[in-house]
Amino acid sequence: MPNTHKCPSDMDGLRQLLAALPGPDAAALAAAEAREPTLTKPPGSLGRLEYMAHWLAAWQGRHPPRVESIAVRVFAGNHGVVAKGVSAYPAEVTAQMVGNFAAGGAAVNQLCAAAAADLDVIALDLDQPTADFTEAPAMDEAAFLAAVGRGMTSVPGDADLLCVGEMGIGNTTSAAALALGLYGGTADDWTGPGTGVEGDAFALKVAAVGEGVRRHARHLGDGMEALRRLGGRELAAMAGAIIQARLTRVPVLLDGYVVAAAAAAVAVSAPGGLEHCLAAHVSAEPAHRRLLEELRLIPLLDMNMRLGEASGAVLAASLVKSAAACHAGMATFAEAGVSDKD
Amino acid sequence: MPNTHKCPSDMDGLRQLLAALPGPDAAALAAAEAREPTLTKPPGSLGRLEYMAHWLAAWQGRHPPRVESIAVRVFAGNHGVVAKGVSAYPAEVTAQMVGNFAAGGAAVNQLCAAAAADLDVIALDLDQPTADFTEAPAMDEAAFLAAVGRGMTSVPGDADLLCVGEMGIGNTTSAAALALGLYGGTADDWTGPGTGVEGDAFALKVAAVGEGVRRHARHLGDGMEALRRLGGRELAAMAGAIIQARLTRVPVLLDGYVVAAAAAAVAVSAPGGLEHCLAAHVSAEPAHRRLLEELRLIPLLDMNMRLGEASGAVLAASLVKSAAACHAGMATFAEAGVSDKD
Repeated sequence: MPNTHKCPSDMDGLRQLLAALPGPDAAALAAAEAREPTLTKPPGSLGRLEYMAHWLAAWQGRHPPRVESIAVRVFAGNHGVVAKGVSAYPAEVTAQMVGNFAAGGAAVNQLCAAAAADLDVIALDLDQPTADFTEAPAMDEAAFLAAVGRGMTSVPGDADLLCVGEMGIGNTTSAAALALGLYGGTADDWTGPGTGVEGDAFALKVAAVGEGVRRHARHLGDGMEALRRLGGRELAAMAGAIIQARLTRVPVLLDGYVVAAAAAAVAVSAPGGLEHCLAAHVSAEPAHRRLLEELRLIPLLDMNMRLGEASGAVLAASLVKSAAACHAGMATFAEAGVSDKD
Repeated sequence: MPNTHKCPSDMDGLRQLLAALPGPDAAALAAAEAREPTLTKPPGSLGRLEYMAHWLAAWQGRHPPRVESIAVRVFAGNHGVVAKGVSAYPAEVTAQMVGNFAAGGAAVNQLCAAAAADLDVIALDLDQPTADFTEAPAMDEAAFLAAVGRGMTSVPGDADLLCVGEMGIGNTTSAAALALGLYGGTADDWTGPGTGVEGDAFALKVAAVGEGVRRHARHLGDGMEALRRLGGRELAAMAGAIIQARLTRVPVLLDGYVVAAAAAAVAVSAPGGLEHCLAAHVSAEPAHRRLLEELRLIPLLDMNMRLGEASGAVLAASLVKSAAACHAGMATFAEAGVSDKD
């Protein structure tokens, strides 16, 4: 795990790190763009696969890009706001599902096996839920920075691609509050069924989202402060993983709505700070599409999924791997003796 | 290659085969639907992956479904209508690209390697282009049935999934004529740039499509007759492969516009005849979307691709494989000791 950067020890240090994120590798990008028209296919005929190969080169900082080592990191946390009755499942399910991940029984285990991806699950103090954000900041600064740091150190610097995902009963409530706090609108705009809340529980969820944002309204102009107050440990850790990936040149696939909310805190803190990320999919959680639009991310897949667990990200990893394989492995017109256009 | 069915020896025999295609396996489908709500995820949260697993069970005729052996079959043919100046590339490119496939230099080679799929390329009499369909039927009955038969025998009956694709300079002209002949409208509606024709060449392409359909108009009510007159050897072979796959319980991923046109001839001849097929993607060829709507097929991917070669189908194969892996491999709530909803 080379080149691992540590989390700064205070909020100002984190803000300074976010203000100085590295940019794309212009030489690798130029090399990818120069090779593309020489490959044995009509120009542009691989569509988004061509763009993905160039994006990989730019953010891996090498040409040709490659996707052999796929790291999947699933962050789990518990949320004090669950006490407000916002979820269809009890909070115990977070730890139970972490056990299911360890035993190999969850969807993400099967997806990782199919994609030959390396899965690690980072359970963040599951026996210590964050504070209920409708009553207090979800985390104090020490707890927040510790979670960001856990995310940062979870990223293997030698991975070719990072899939970021989460598990946490109550965390779509946290994501909705964060999206509302960062981008405005109403609580209804950003609140969806999550794992499947309906009726009275859904009304409680909408109310909690609105109440949380009202309580912390004066502090939400800063992305990291919004994440500390309305997020959860797994959201903070995902922001840390996204930052570490940028620092160590590992392109990222973002999974669903909760991941997008954590990423949004990075984007608000660091304009351009998600350029090394692609949205793996748009989920069935209704506000995900709007949040991706705010982030200027066009999803790769639209499969009506809403599971989390990095499931959409791992599914899309095979597309990114294929893009790299085509770009790196195809013959040129000259090599293959194929006549070029006209 | 067990259970291989041969092509009938005349057009009536082919029509009779199409009238008696087997249906889905109701018991396997019921078993898949019964297992789904027991798996450790909120109901419906894997979206289209759930549907795909059920579809696989129904058309493989077994539960649980599996996708281990992926067969990719790319059919290549040459077209007399190329003499009308309808393509951006010379006809020699068809054989040159078949050489590129054999040498491992094409996009589909890289995609098959990434997906661990078995590729076979079936070159159909490339030195004998079909007749120019604006002047005569593309194939006589013997040539047509021979091509259908080549497609039928190309399908390994022990494959878990078949990806169907093509290569043939001029074949988007043939596909457009077939779509127009089968579904009506105008030549403009169904004609696109293919590999990239523009300006005068595009006008020649539209004119050829319209002229072909006018010449054969009285014979286009029958799908197989339309395919013989306006198709090409690779389109006839793809229809044969789709039929064989149905007979031997191999679910199919259809690639792009030309594949959809060949499939349309099957659909017109046999209502429900494509139920064992999914559309892998919607391509950048403008009329592909409309043709998929006629076929009632919702594409899995939308990556702005327009290469052919089964490229979109192989890319989507990993999604289907993942669907089967989740359904077959996930733990149930009872097995994992996870609390169910509410």
